[in-house]
Amino acid sequence: MPVGTQATVKAVFPETLIELDAEIILANTYHLYMRPGHKLIESLGGLHKFMHWDRPILTDSGGFQVFSLGQLRKIDEEGVRFQSHIDGSPHLLTPELSMAVQRALDADIVMAFDECIPYPSERAYVEASTALSSRWARRSKDSHFRDDGAALFGIVQGGMYRDLRQRSVLDLLDIGFDGYAIGGLSVGEEAELMYEVLEWTLPHLPTDSPRYLMGVGTPENLIEAVARGVDMFDCVMPTRNARNGVLFTTFGKISIKQARYHDDPLPIDPACDCYVCRHYSRAYLRHLYQGNEILASMLNTQHNLYYYLNLMKGARNAIDNGCFQKYRSDFYRLRGLSLPA
Amino acid sequence: MPVGTQATVKAVFPETLIELDAEIILANTYHLYMRPGHKLIESLGGLHKFMHWDRPILTDSGGFQVFSLGQLRKIDEEGVRFQSHIDGSPHLLTPELSMAVQRALDADIVMAFDECIPYPSERAYVEASTALSSRWARRSKDSHFRDDGAALFGIVQGGMYRDLRQRSVLDLLDIGFDGYAIGGLSVGEEAELMYEVLEWTLPHLPTDSPRYLMGVGTPENLIEAVARGVDMFDCVMPTRNARNGVLFTTFGKISIKQARYHDDPLPIDPACDCYVCRHYSRAYLRHLYQGNEILASMLNTQHNLYYYLNLMKGARNAIDNGCFQKYRSDFYRLRGLSLPA
Repeated sequence: MPVGTQATVKAVFPETLIELDAEIILANTYHLYMRPGHKLIESLGGLHKFMHWDRPILTDSGGFQVFSLGQLRKIDEEGVRFQSHIDGSPHLLTPELSMAVQRALDADIVMAFDECIPYPSERAYVEASTALSSRWARRSKDSHFRDDGAALFGIVQGGMYRDLRQRSVLDLLDIGFDGYAIGGLSVGEEAELMYEVLEWTLPHLPTDSPRYLMGVGTPENLIEAVARGVDMFDCVMPTRNARNGVLFTTFGKISIKQARYHDDPLPIDPACDCYVCRHYSRAYLRHLYQGNEILASMLNTQHNLYYYLNLMKGARNAIDNGCFQKYRSDFYRLRGLSLPA
Repeated sequence: MPVGTQATVKAVFPETLIELDAEIILANTYHLYMRPGHKLIESLGGLHKFMHWDRPILTDSGGFQVFSLGQLRKIDEEGVRFQSHIDGSPHLLTPELSMAVQRALDADIVMAFDECIPYPSERAYVEASTALSSRWARRSKDSHFRDDGAALFGIVQGGMYRDLRQRSVLDLLDIGFDGYAIGGLSVGEEAELMYEVLEWTLPHLPTDSPRYLMGVGTPENLIEAVARGVDMFDCVMPTRNARNGVLFTTFGKISIKQARYHDDPLPIDPACDCYVCRHYSRAYLRHLYQGNEILASMLNTQHNLYYYLNLMKGARNAIDNGCFQKYRSDFYRLRGLSLPA
């Protein structure tokens, strides 16, 4: 899922997302709650109409941004008290409010409200936080009144502790959700530890419900998570890196600002057939980047989204055709890397 | 002509310019000479290929930017010595070098090298400068060797002095050009004075050659200049204003950042049928602007370019149908303004 934080996937027209075959995007509840406000968006017909996007939208619960952006946070049983990062105004975000905001936005997939646990954290903290997230998950489910069929996903927490991850899974299965997300990863831990947590968690999640790894990650992370059973991802990496001139290719990533591309007539990725690679040279893209041109962000974002969406499309096809392990080893071979252990 | 200073019309894909029916764009010789360099662009196949634009390109001579951006300028008979605004490196721009750079860029319309006279200026200065520009125009013509049929336009100077404007016209006609531009306007003078200069100048220019008013201007300026016989314009106003949230409409301009548009479900211009007005509300565009979203510049620029190009298309149709005076009076009536004297 491309990330459309403020009701726009940065630097991309919705029509371009359709051309890129993006089936769903993510929008951030916290940001839209703060500005322009969920009631305004509701009064204008919901987020789809507001941002001119007809396909599905998944909204996060707002929790993650409250923890990363909100100031003077204070967590209690009721929810999270914090101050806005924009104007310092005081707010209280609860599971019930998160559901109401996501309903007002008209999300197609709603995420339960949880606490994203920092890494590293003491076991006692993780245990208490995971139990609180389970109670909040129950309250999220209880207040998710939707007659339009919008789905509700629970979020597995439990930090880096195997038994707490499993306890979190059992709590969520007991409540029952339309899909299950794995939260609290990609928070600073080593990739190997993330893969280990996935291996502890995924086998316990039902295979007939979507399994979604939140906020991950690099192309390597995606391939490894797919290998372990993940179905869905969101990450700002393709779009944010694009705006910083970091571009993904079949052969690894490149930084277009480097002087070596000054007069390079090749496309970003000679093996890519996206719009950008068909029409523009690295020399031109470097020139645009050096000149702070908006078109640099537009073209770089379009290429990186194509790369990510195409990588996942390839993985789906490979799974369908029973050759995912070959797909995975080709992925590493073209990068000059050996398969991870 | 939309302005593509650094080999991109800011925040617009070339395909969008085609959809907007832009027949030609302008690129700035000074900027491209400085970065990435005309020889690099030449080695990559010329500006059309570099920026993925097949339709005609007009390049200015570089003179205007040398005067507005170059540091420690010193003008003599040979040309202009100045220091780069990017790295302070010393340069000498001459008519011959300007022609060589525009040839390397593969411009379809090349502009003669001239001095754009500041306003206000003493008559003695204007007289000497205009004579120098005429000698530079001769040298431009003499060094414009092109076997690909690229056109060369001369530029009328003469400041705000009627007899010097006419002397400049006679000098240029004596040399002979494929088209004639009117330079040295929109440099801080009142609109009425600009129109007066046009009235002194245009009747002396051949009607079977294009007549081009450089660097102008507001929608009102364009309508008044067309009324006086101008055929071509370039201006950063639609694109630069767009990035600052100033949008042109049938009913005058609006500033999308204003709080009054916070919950406004209307399009930018209810009388406009461009892509942006068909799909997005003022409330959404204000939200994007407030959030510093790149999509704000993309959508605002697309609307403003549509407005300008459509205004000129309407003027051409009205002239073809013999009803330009009605077109002009409707233009003012819809703005709640009376026709200028």
